Amino acid sequence: MTANTRTRLSPDERRTQLLDLGFRLLATRSLDELSIDLLAEEAGVSRGLMYHYFGGKQGFFEAVVQHAADDLYARTAPPAEGEPLERLLASITGYVDYVVANQAGYRSLVKGATAGNDSLRAIYDTTFAALAERFFTADPGGDVFPDTPAVRLVIHAWQAMVEDLVLTWCDSPAGLSREDLLSVITASLPAIIDTLP
Amino acid sequence: MTANTRTRLSPDERRTQLLDLGFRLLATRSLDELSIDLLAEEAGVSRGLMYHYFGGKQGFFEAVVQHAADDLYARTAPPAEGEPLERLLASITGYVDYVVANQAGYRSLVKGATAGNDSLRAIYDTTFAALAERFFTADPGGDVFPDTPAVRLVIHAWQAMVEDLVLTWCDSPAGLSREDLLSVITASLPAIIDTLP
Repeated sequence: MTANTRTRLSPDERRTQLLDLGFRLLATRSLDELSIDLLAEEAGVSRGLMYHYFGGKQGFFEAVVQHAADDLYARTAPPAEGEPLERLLASITGYVDYVVANQAGYRSLVKGATAGNDSLRAIYDTTFAALAERFFTADPGGDVFPDTPAVRLVIHAWQAMVEDLVLTWCDSPAGLSREDLLSVITASLPAIIDTLP
Repeated sequence: MTANTRTRLSPDERRTQLLDLGFRLLATRSLDELSIDLLAEEAGVSRGLMYHYFGGKQGFFEAVVQHAADDLYARTAPPAEGEPLERLLASITGYVDYVVANQAGYRSLVKGATAGNDSLRAIYDTTFAALAERFFTADPGGDVFPDTPAVRLVIHAWQAMVEDLVLTWCDSPAGLSREDLLSVITASLPAIIDTLP
């Protein structure tokens, strides 16, 4: 029965299913420990099919990272309407909830992006640049986030701060509720931008 | 002549010299590319001596990272006297100047700490924890930096922000002078702490 259910998936659905499984496996394993063999076994598919879809281990890693990055980007889409700071809060809430729900996998991806090859790094950088871009599209008048090189520099650094803040908070919440954390993250960006000359 | 000069060094001086050389070589090579053979060749010493001092490649890496971390800690020592924010500024100035002067080596160490084994990670974490500790010793009354778990969480995240800010600024200064950068870094910490509930 299971095999029949599987074979009814379209190639795209099957591919997505394998990527989701790869990301879930990252929750308890590092990128180094994740192998085509392990994935094929867990998914109940042949190694040949894995190679057919991903071309090899490196191609699979990149596809898993890209899939996770696309997922993160989709889940942090701000509402189409609203004040810039409200839209920022909605987007940040999506980010925090995503990281909390996928902590181990997210840590693996950060580590893979830092340690890994240029392709993984590029996916990570492109994703965070796309997330940063939202500040300017959410605030086209530049009232809160004027689009200057200095503000872009600060947003990049604030993203690094937020990543560290959420991951550290997951380990040890330091008396802060999820709402406290969201409030610190949201309020700190305009506060840091205010320190620019 | 050179060989004679070398042999006059004490074992401690020789070891320090090798660690300095290792750190300088990291400016243009990753940890992976740095080998005992290369270092022995550059230093004009035997591989046997390298193994005698460091026990192998991993021991050498750890010694280089620990040496760089100790150096960073020493160079960022705040003045013994002064207002907390002035002492913070002096300490941050030391950090920024160190990273700017040792950019490539510093990037290698960050990458090694993120990707590497637990020993490298522990040296990195211990160093940043020691740097953070200074905020509380510089402000024993807790006027600017009350010693609470939430403030410690924020300082940890702010350190990640500062690291990203300085490294990104090295690549592209975004119209900010060194003084502008120092001012953003120094002023942002109290501003972020103010966002705590």
